[in-house]
Amino acid sequence: MAMTGVLRPGHAQIRVLGLDEGVKHYRDVLGLVETGRDRQGRVYLKAWDERDHNSVILREADEAGLDFFGFKVADKATLAKLDADLKAYGLATERMPAGELLETGERVRFELPSGHIIELYADKTDVGNGMPYVNPAPWTPAAESGIAPSRMDHCLLYGPDIEKVQDIFVNVLGFYLVEHVVLEDGVNDLAIWLSCSMKAHDIAFVRHPEPGKLHHVSFLLDSWEKVLRAADIMSMNKVAVDIGPTRHGVTRGTTIYAFDPSGNRFETFCGGYQAYPDWQPIKWTWDEVGTGIFYHDRKLNDRFLAVVS
Amino acid sequence: MAMTGVLRPGHAQIRVLGLDEGVKHYRDVLGLVETGRDRQGRVYLKAWDERDHNSVILREADEAGLDFFGFKVADKATLAKLDADLKAYGLATERMPAGELLETGERVRFELPSGHIIELYADKTDVGNGMPYVNPAPWTPAAESGIAPSRMDHCLLYGPDIEKVQDIFVNVLGFYLVEHVVLEDGVNDLAIWLSCSMKAHDIAFVRHPEPGKLHHVSFLLDSWEKVLRAADIMSMNKVAVDIGPTRHGVTRGTTIYAFDPSGNRFETFCGGYQAYPDWQPIKWTWDEVGTGIFYHDRKLNDRFLAVVS
Amino acid sequence: MAMTGVLRPGHAQIRVLGLDEGVKHYRDVLGLVETGRDRQGRVYLKAWDERDHNSVILREADEAGLDFFGFKVADKATLAKLDADLKAYGLATERMPAGELLETGERVRFELPSGHIIELYADKTDVGNGMPYVNPAPWTPAAESGIAPSRMDHCLLYGPDIEKVQDIFVNVLGFYLVEHVVLEDGVNDLAIWLSCSMKAHDIAFVRHPEPGKLHHVSFLLDSWEKVLRAADIMSMNKVAVDIGPTRHGVTRGTTIYAFDPSGNRFETFCGGYQAYPDWQPIKWTWDEVGTGIFYHDRKLNDRFLAVVS
Amino acid sequence: MAMTGVLRPGHAQIRVLGLDEGVKHYRDVLGLVETGRDRQGRVYLKAWDERDHNSVILREADEAGLDFFGFKVADKATLAKLDADLKAYGLATERMPAGELLETGERVRFELPSGHIIELYADKTDVGNGMPYVNPAPWTPAAESGIAPSRMDHCLLYGPDIEKVQDIFVNVLGFYLVEHVVLEDGVNDLAIWLSCSMKAHDIAFVRHPEPGKLHHVSFLLDSWEKVLRAADIMSMNKVAVDIGPTRHGVTRGTTIYAFDPSGNRFETFCGGYQAYPDWQPIKWTWDEVGTGIFYHDRKLNDRFLAVVS
Repeated sequence: MAMTGVLRPGHAQIRVLGLDEGVKHYRDVLGLVETGRDRQGRVYLKAWDERDHNSVILREADEAGLDFFGFKVADKATLAKLDADLKAYGLATERMPAGELLETGERVRFELPSGHIIELYADKTDVGNGMPYVNPAPWTPAAESGIAPSRMDHCLLYGPDIEKVQDIFVNVLGFYLVEHVVLEDGVNDLAIWLSCSMKAHDIAFVRHPEPGKLHHVSFLLDSWEKVLRAADIMSMNKVAVDIGPTRHGVTRGTTIYAFDPSGNRFETFCGGYQAYPDWQPIKWTWDEVGTGIFYHDRKLNDRFLAVVS
Repeated sequence: MAMTGVLRPGHAQIRVLGLDEGVKHYRDVLGLVETGRDRQGRVYLKAWDERDHNSVILREADEAGLDFFGFKVADKATLAKLDADLKAYGLATERMPAGELLETGERVRFELPSGHIIELYADKTDVGNGMPYVNPAPWTPAAESGIAPSRMDHCLLYGPDIEKVQDIFVNVLGFYLVEHVVLEDGVNDLAIWLSCSMKAHDIAFVRHPEPGKLHHVSFLLDSWEKVLRAADIMSMNKVAVDIGPTRHGVTRGTTIYAFDPSGNRFETFCGGYQAYPDWQPIKWTWDEVGTGIFYHDRKLNDRFLAVVS
Repeated sequence: MAMTGVLRPGHAQIRVLGLDEGVKHYRDVLGLVETGRDRQGRVYLKAWDERDHNSVILREADEAGLDFFGFKVADKATLAKLDADLKAYGLATERMPAGELLETGERVRFELPSGHIIELYADKTDVGNGMPYVNPAPWTPAAESGIAPSRMDHCLLYGPDIEKVQDIFVNVLGFYLVEHVVLEDGVNDLAIWLSCSMKAHDIAFVRHPEPGKLHHVSFLLDSWEKVLRAADIMSMNKVAVDIGPTRHGVTRGTTIYAFDPSGNRFETFCGGYQAYPDWQPIKWTWDEVGTGIFYHDRKLNDRFLAVVS
Repeated sequence: MAMTGVLRPGHAQIRVLGLDEGVKHYRDVLGLVETGRDRQGRVYLKAWDERDHNSVILREADEAGLDFFGFKVADKATLAKLDADLKAYGLATERMPAGELLETGERVRFELPSGHIIELYADKTDVGNGMPYVNPAPWTPAAESGIAPSRMDHCLLYGPDIEKVQDIFVNVLGFYLVEHVVLEDGVNDLAIWLSCSMKAHDIAFVRHPEPGKLHHVSFLLDSWEKVLRAADIMSMNKVAVDIGPTRHGVTRGTTIYAFDPSGNRFETFCGGYQAYPDWQPIKWTWDEVGTGIFYHDRKLNDRFLAVVS
């Protein structure tokens, strides 16, 4: 098989301070489709073009942040093998039973040295993207309802020990390093972008003293024009924009960072190149970190390194 | 590993009737970068954003068409394994020595039941995309020299026995079926789109009585605006446009089909969705084949099924 | 005053064979906003970003085509002066009373030598574009309802005696010639594009033996990406596309030609350069007329000169 | 005539601290075409798609800023009439002889109450846009050389007495008010946008205690994608970006503000709506001035009101 093992980011469970305003943001402004609610009161959403039942789960809590981030793997055999590999590596894993998340099979859960909970799972119900699997149109009205990203794409997490995190993703989970920013010492990394696919990043990490923090969950748009439209819709809805529209040097993607009503940063982004595992990683030096993160401004804003949830 | 086995389309050797006008077309109009010529007189080119030494090889011949189409695989061990798997499947394979193509390692070559020569290889020299691997800009002037696709992307081939072809790509090489068009009988396929990645197609086939024919080699553009620019440049250079700019129903990609001076069709296309192997394939029925191929016109033009090289 | 006299195309009364299917097309597919119906049963529509009450009026009739095309002039004094100037030129003018068209003041009507009825008027009620005149957003949901052009932009009419038509528009109404296509004789024009503004065309004419025919009424889109979206929506609604998306050589605008259910051609187009009256006109020679009309195909399709309503 | 009187912004004479770095910026980075140098050492440039000989003149000086801003009028009779009208209004005018600016006819010069020098002229040599007036292509390689705006579009000037300025532009020169921002007092304007055409602004003013200051000269791009490309090129050339890419609420245009090496702000912008003189002006209230200026951020940056040259 050419695509095996871990396939893609599948779900992110995000804590919001108020469920109603959270739903209003993710469904009505961001434009995700609500697909269910469970007994715990969690709200399930998906991007219009995703086929699996959910990719964002909102949980009401006293503190914003990310509960866990899950990856879909190729099949049950892969799930079993990766569970064994993680244990062999020395990580404790936990099995979450099928159905604990709506329409989602059994999940293998483990904690990264950075303090984040990662999950793997093989099954999530195909509910379709609103178009038939026979003679489909290229898009539906849902593609224009709110900002309407086509998928939940990746996340950027902040925490310590990112070398160990990289080792796990690369040597156990089969990811590869696409880009990295080197610290002032010229040796250690400030940030790493990792891929299990052709995406320039399926997950990324920034070194940070406090464990388990979320920088942003990212949502994919189809064009730079859709990025402009997203920024317009944010302003129409008084969403707090962090920065953008602009371009990242890293990945070349175009981007807006903004905050949900609970203070969780999210990104609507487009493009970037498509990567392959045989490519050598791209390095950004400390003096050019600003250019790497915000290509047009060529400097970080104050919030990039400081504000996480 | 998450991306394993066959990674991507790597090279296409195309026959042109006149080498000079072929080079003029592929280098000066299409905007590929010439990277070398060999003792046989073949001319090597690559798209500006590709890192490997070559992706298009032009060979002067009396008849237009495709000599062979090659895929890069993850590494030498993969190459050996796939060679053994192909033989075990019952296909004869041939080893082309390293260096027979410039800057390219040993290739495993075999013939499909459709009459096409396919190659696998693990090594091609990384010559870079014209930007450093440290603190790169997002693009270079080469990205605006001619039509300037970012990569050679896929090909569509015409020949018989496409069920057997599909079986080899899926069950030996690890591809998956993304979309297919069913014939009037409702059972057999007219056309199949196959992926070894997240691309909606890495290779595609249309059923055709004559073996070994080329419909088109395709080159990737970054945006619909670049598709317009490509059409403008084609007209400025009196390139014969087949159809477009338009959209395919299949893959949703936007497209122009046009012909090189020897009559080989090529495509400049953009977008389409990104696919995963766990997705169920999309089917197009016979009565909607026109919509599937040319979404706006909703009918095939005369040339689509008839003109190949 | 810098913009004086005739300001812009203001309304087009179009004959449709069935009012319901006409409304469905212009309102639900093209995405105009219905603003009223009168006692005669005529339906009034406007593009979302127009401020005046109506720009398209549909009248049910046994034969498709254009009843009349109206221009808004700067004020009542201008209307009186142009009426006098038209009479002094030798044209009969007729006054249509205020209110004969909903929310529209008195109109001065006359017939061109090409057989078309043209109207001038100074007043049409400002109903706004759906956004306040204080602190407006850049667009509203109406901007994404159907194809949603921002305005009715111009028309192309077919008829005889276009030299006389040009003389009236230039020497009485203050238009200027922007581009023209010369016939095989190298002397007379096949087609003329005329502007009363910075638009590359506010009205255009093609020489044709039969008087009073409509080639198309055109609607403006904001970007090439919106042109793609328009083509998608046409296909989703099985609108008969004539040609496009493509580019005109004349005006450089990007375009789709398609037909309403009654067979009236309409255009959704974008861009083109902005012109000034001190610029010398651009000429297209007979051998390049195809390139002038359809820049990518570099030839006319059969319908361009033959199919009018 | 429908377009009469003042036609368009025609030239801006900008002071630069170093001529060589100024030329490098405006020619090589911004992508204007150098068309001449005069005995005083001034350098003349034009945007690729402009037909007149020059639109930007660089003069080396000890202080950055704008020497004067000129408008082309319809013809010599118009020039004479406007000269008389300005005098009748009570303004002193001065005649600059033909040829004092290269390839430019006699200019009528006067000073605004805001301290800016404005010029009117009827003649500037048509040197073409690099394409023939017979069967032209839609663009040339010059359209991709540097940022490559299609024209110098407008300027924004800072100074006192903008009510008087507005009175002159509206009641003597025939401009109309398109948008304005009201001060905290709810009565007086902070800023006014004025048009002599269908452009949402041909010139704009912000109230400022110091007379004769330049906020920016603006250059037109064809698409939001070209705005991204402009930002990329600015970063590649280490141009100091002020803000953007973003959208203005006022005019709806998309924009980047940046600085030339001497500290003169310039803008590369796209779009905005097309306006007409019969439209009522749009008002922005003091509490929404941030949204009016930078629609996505919804607040002014520190530099907008403070940094001028």
